[in-house]
Amino acid sequence: MTSRDKHDRMANAIRFLSMDAVEKANSGHPGLPMGAADIATVLFTRFMKHDPKNPHWADRDRFVLSAGHGSMLLYSLLYLTGYEDITLDQIKNFRQIGYRTAGHPEFGHAAGIETTTGPLGQGIANAVGMALAERILNARYGDALVDHYTYALAGDGCLMEGISQEAIALAGHLKLNKLIVLWDDNDITIDGAVSLSDSTDQRARFAASHWNTLAVDGHDPEAIAAAIEAARRSDRPTMIACKTTIGFGAPTKAGTSKVHGSALGAEEIAGARKALGWDFPPFEIPSDILDAWRVSGLNACKKRKEWEARLAETDAEIRAEFERRMSGDLPANFDAVIAEYKQKLAADKPKVATRKSSEMALEVINGAVPETIGGSADLTGSNNTKTSQTKPIAPGEYAGRYVYYGIREHGMAAAMNGMALHGGIIPYGGTFMTFSDYARPAMRLASLMGIRSIFVMTHDSIGLGEDGPTHQPVEHLAALRAIPNHNVFRPADATEATECWQLALESTKTPSTLALTRQNLPAVRTEYVEENLCAYGAYELATADGEAAVTIFASGSEVEIALAARAQLQAHGHPTRVVSVPCFELFEKQSDTYKAALIGNAPVKIAIEAAIRMGWDRFIGLDGIFIGMHGFGASGTIEQLYPHFGITAEATVKAAEARLSN
Amino acid sequence: MTSRDKHDRMANAIRFLSMDAVEKANSGHPGLPMGAADIATVLFTRFMKHDPKNPHWADRDRFVLSAGHGSMLLYSLLYLTGYEDITLDQIKNFRQIGYRTAGHPEFGHAAGIETTTGPLGQGIANAVGMALAERILNARYGDALVDHYTYALAGDGCLMEGISQEAIALAGHLKLNKLIVLWDDNDITIDGAVSLSDSTDQRARFAASHWNTLAVDGHDPEAIAAAIEAARRSDRPTMIACKTTIGFGAPTKAGTSKVHGSALGAEEIAGARKALGWDFPPFEIPSDILDAWRVSGLNACKKRKEWEARLAETDAEIRAEFERRMSGDLPANFDAVIAEYKQKLAADKPKVATRKSSEMALEVINGAVPETIGGSADLTGSNNTKTSQTKPIAPGEYAGRYVYYGIREHGMAAAMNGMALHGGIIPYGGTFMTFSDYARPAMRLASLMGIRSIFVMTHDSIGLGEDGPTHQPVEHLAALRAIPNHNVFRPADATEATECWQLALESTKTPSTLALTRQNLPAVRTEYVEENLCAYGAYELATADGEAAVTIFASGSEVEIALAARAQLQAHGHPTRVVSVPCFELFEKQSDTYKAALIGNAPVKIAIEAAIRMGWDRFIGLDGIFIGMHGFGASGTIEQLYPHFGITAEATVKAAEARLSN
Repeated sequence: MTSRDKHDRMANAIRFLSMDAVEKANSGHPGLPMGAADIATVLFTRFMKHDPKNPHWADRDRFVLSAGHGSMLLYSLLYLTGYEDITLDQIKNFRQIGYRTAGHPEFGHAAGIETTTGPLGQGIANAVGMALAERILNARYGDALVDHYTYALAGDGCLMEGISQEAIALAGHLKLNKLIVLWDDNDITIDGAVSLSDSTDQRARFAASHWNTLAVDGHDPEAIAAAIEAARRSDRPTMIACKTTIGFGAPTKAGTSKVHGSALGAEEIAGARKALGWDFPPFEIPSDILDAWRVSGLNACKKRKEWEARLAETDAEIRAEFERRMSGDLPANFDAVIAEYKQKLAADKPKVATRKSSEMALEVINGAVPETIGGSADLTGSNNTKTSQTKPIAPGEYAGRYVYYGIREHGMAAAMNGMALHGGIIPYGGTFMTFSDYARPAMRLASLMGIRSIFVMTHDSIGLGEDGPTHQPVEHLAALRAIPNHNVFRPADATEATECWQLALESTKTPSTLALTRQNLPAVRTEYVEENLCAYGAYELATADGEAAVTIFASGSEVEIALAARAQLQAHGHPTRVVSVPCFELFEKQSDTYKAALIGNAPVKIAIEAAIRMGWDRFIGLDGIFIGMHGFGASGTIEQLYPHFGITAEATVKAAEARLSN
Repeated sequence: MTSRDKHDRMANAIRFLSMDAVEKANSGHPGLPMGAADIATVLFTRFMKHDPKNPHWADRDRFVLSAGHGSMLLYSLLYLTGYEDITLDQIKNFRQIGYRTAGHPEFGHAAGIETTTGPLGQGIANAVGMALAERILNARYGDALVDHYTYALAGDGCLMEGISQEAIALAGHLKLNKLIVLWDDNDITIDGAVSLSDSTDQRARFAASHWNTLAVDGHDPEAIAAAIEAARRSDRPTMIACKTTIGFGAPTKAGTSKVHGSALGAEEIAGARKALGWDFPPFEIPSDILDAWRVSGLNACKKRKEWEARLAETDAEIRAEFERRMSGDLPANFDAVIAEYKQKLAADKPKVATRKSSEMALEVINGAVPETIGGSADLTGSNNTKTSQTKPIAPGEYAGRYVYYGIREHGMAAAMNGMALHGGIIPYGGTFMTFSDYARPAMRLASLMGIRSIFVMTHDSIGLGEDGPTHQPVEHLAALRAIPNHNVFRPADATEATECWQLALESTKTPSTLALTRQNLPAVRTEYVEENLCAYGAYELATADGEAAVTIFASGSEVEIALAARAQLQAHGHPTRVVSVPCFELFEKQSDTYKAALIGNAPVKIAIEAAIRMGWDRFIGLDGIFIGMHGFGASGTIEQLYPHFGITAEATVKAAEARLSN
């Protein structure tokens, strides 16, 4: 058997596993795995530094299947190279509930799935984050501990999505030379030929962002290998355009959109078996081919052992710190540092915007937690995301801790996800809350994957003032709270901001959004309490002077209004409690007893939030009084806007008293 | 006064109006208007075909300030050229509540504001839609009635946003040669130099998408004029890189990020007055300069009159149709066509997916309403957006009615907004509902602007099956319902789908989203009713057999489950009503009497929707039973998934009976 024969048979193993799994499921995408099998075979048999038996090895190469619909390509590779999570039984149960082999690759389902892909363009942007993480950690720990490549396989869909431009431009700017994108250039999309909707010269486009670009026949293993070799030596990120035939081997459907997203049918598969000379029944891989794949899975075993030896030889303190960072654990003194800072806040009672409170907390956190990497989508001074410790990361210079992401909210969020997935880094990044919409698809994936990406969303209401309704979030708090497994924090003052940051850092399996004000707020937490009260999601901030006639629930900037309303109501003889609600999601996790007691039985329940009502009925009931927004905002000063929209202590008191006198 | 002196003084009028207005507001963005004043002066005095006294003239050139933060540039131009909506008083009250001169340009605030901009990248994509609309209408009505340019002024922020890539690639592909983008190439973003975050060769990038590109000194009026002249003759869209100094004229802050987004201060403005030789007090424009501007505002008056003459000479039927289309009114027979089709449906009772119902309704609608332009973000066969009438639009060929938008949800939605804003077209476009997140920023702007963009979102729940949680919307219905002025329709069968389409087309001031299933659904509306019942937002679909013990509220695919549960509950002696809830937003607009009666007093209230609970408390109260999703979905068959997540008639009956027996 020549080396080319062997390659072909190994690639065909991917093709038939994919065809057969899709056929059995009667659902899925055979076209990409068949078309990209040669690329994947070259990459995994000749280049990938990974160890299927030690799949979490920190210095492994990362492989991202950005075109996630081709999930059977990845599952085939993981099975063939010997990852224990992906057995033949898993492949036979492709796309069935309870199996690891979901329709699209799901992070957490199996070792070797480096990220959840499927929504197009996310994977390539994750890969940018991973490649950046690698360079950042390399700058700290050197080639001995961190020196790996990040490969992404992307299709036309990935490259048409706008997020890809953000990712490409950022990677080119930062000269992430260990990032290699393999473009499955097959001229086909779901609707038909790419030429129906696109004429872009992709190589020219990548080159415009200073990428190294190459083009090869994606079915020529030597050409692919030579290109990857060249890419690995480049001082810039590389895009290799691999011209392929989608559904390679399917006798009548190859090269058409018919092979993209559905089972081929028995006849077509039989034809493919004939065309590719594959005489084996479904799911059977001949032992010599399986052996060849399994042997290739051992390629990097020696490298892993050498790496472990180097790690063992590393200075104990540095090694411990490296291992701690990669584990995701916070420094041992983290809680103590926060406690000390909270004591200082209780004494100082700063009257600042929560975006400033956040910056102050970050100054403490970034001093204690060296693995945070900050950034902003070109709103550094407004998002207050930069602290004294976070020097800039620049092209070729990765020792810093701050990324100027540019005006690229979506690319930022997806790159943050990539950094979090890589490990060793806790990424946070800022923009205006209204632009959370731009980042939302990546924020959703952070939630679905259960990773620690922290989104800093300032200018969180009409309180931002004159920029007007395009910039004033109204529905965004509700829309973010709607995402499962996503903690939305809206702190009311500097102490709450600190507690929310503590919770965000401690939530290793849940991403967080911090909603922060532009405007100054008084301290509402004036006594030091060691316990993190925000961990309850909602808690009684001010008790009623007697049996409560009114309970006011509020978050963030509106807690100040709630306290002012309470003072007026109590002066009028109406005992009033105030409940601060920094995080709906954590409140829902409390005991029923806690929740019932906190909501209480005051005859009048009011919620105040400078946003829409959606979600607040949970606290105040359908007959509760909501003081907030009922539509879009307006351009004006904050002094004009709050009264204009009736979000004032006076309006609250008036509404409460009208209800009490009923 | 030389012609250059005159130009300079006219441009300086923009600069000082902008500086002075921002200074008075103590808020705003002087840098762009000062930097781009020369570009704008050349464009508006030598090229723009518009008539300030007839600002809605259908064949005017469109000018889009994509860099919307530079709103004072636009307000200055509108005031100076004589638009009545923007008076000097408006400019003096820049960014104040109750004035037309909002922080960012708001469509509807004043004639001459062609679109709402501010969220970066949207404007350039709107402009692509406008330019496409122009070509589409030109293909129908010829040069005599439709023959204008679309100009967009974009900054670095617009070009860094991913949406710009989608827009650029689409425009280049479609050869929209009457689109001219002026790039305010000032090397500055908020965080500092562009070089902090970007190194893209923008001309090369546009060229990669087959644009014509030019570069000029953005302060040289003759060079700018020559470039615009050349652009107007191009057979491709043109990007003119105009190298400018941000804050041109500010003595110490020009060319820095300090001049971008805040008032310059009295001293700096005094220095600018000196540097630019402007001896006039704030808001005073010398009469010769104002006269020169006002005269330029009359430049196209003759062209407008000629156009009106051509319109008057046009065949009466064609003219009436053109005028009807541009007015936004539907054809007179529209309701009759729908009524006839509903009768057919009542007879046929088709059991099809609502995505198919939608296609069937569109087949009727597209036959009756020639101004619809369909499309999909590369999911034509899945979204069922193409009908027999909608032939493809292709590069240079605009007589069709269907746009292959490519895998560009965000660009599609923003281009649709541009088409709706242009007038004469009703755009609809499809993708999977989970990818509404990608399009969301543009969907929000459609809502804020109050325009008729119609978003077709298929695969609206776990019902899509094996593609898994990345593709299964769970929070999206709630998140879309959260957007103000956005009608989210979720029809339960073919009749409801038709009624929802009717409502979407009739809602000229509110965009719509149609949430549609992948899976087949039975007809739940089996009798012909002339009235559009979906117009109530929610209505009683099945009465209880006796005094209702249970009311079940459901939408879309879950109405079938509600009806099955009703049958079982009634068989067990529990009279049960079913309320179909196709549109929350329209329900809220009904009278309190209607709403109270519809919700009713059944002791047990249940809502069923294969999505999260958020929003349903409005119908069932906090103690109501919710049958739906509590987190992300899973990859599996629909037959596995509904029982797995407990969304079945049996689970509904069990929950109801447990409550009834309490």
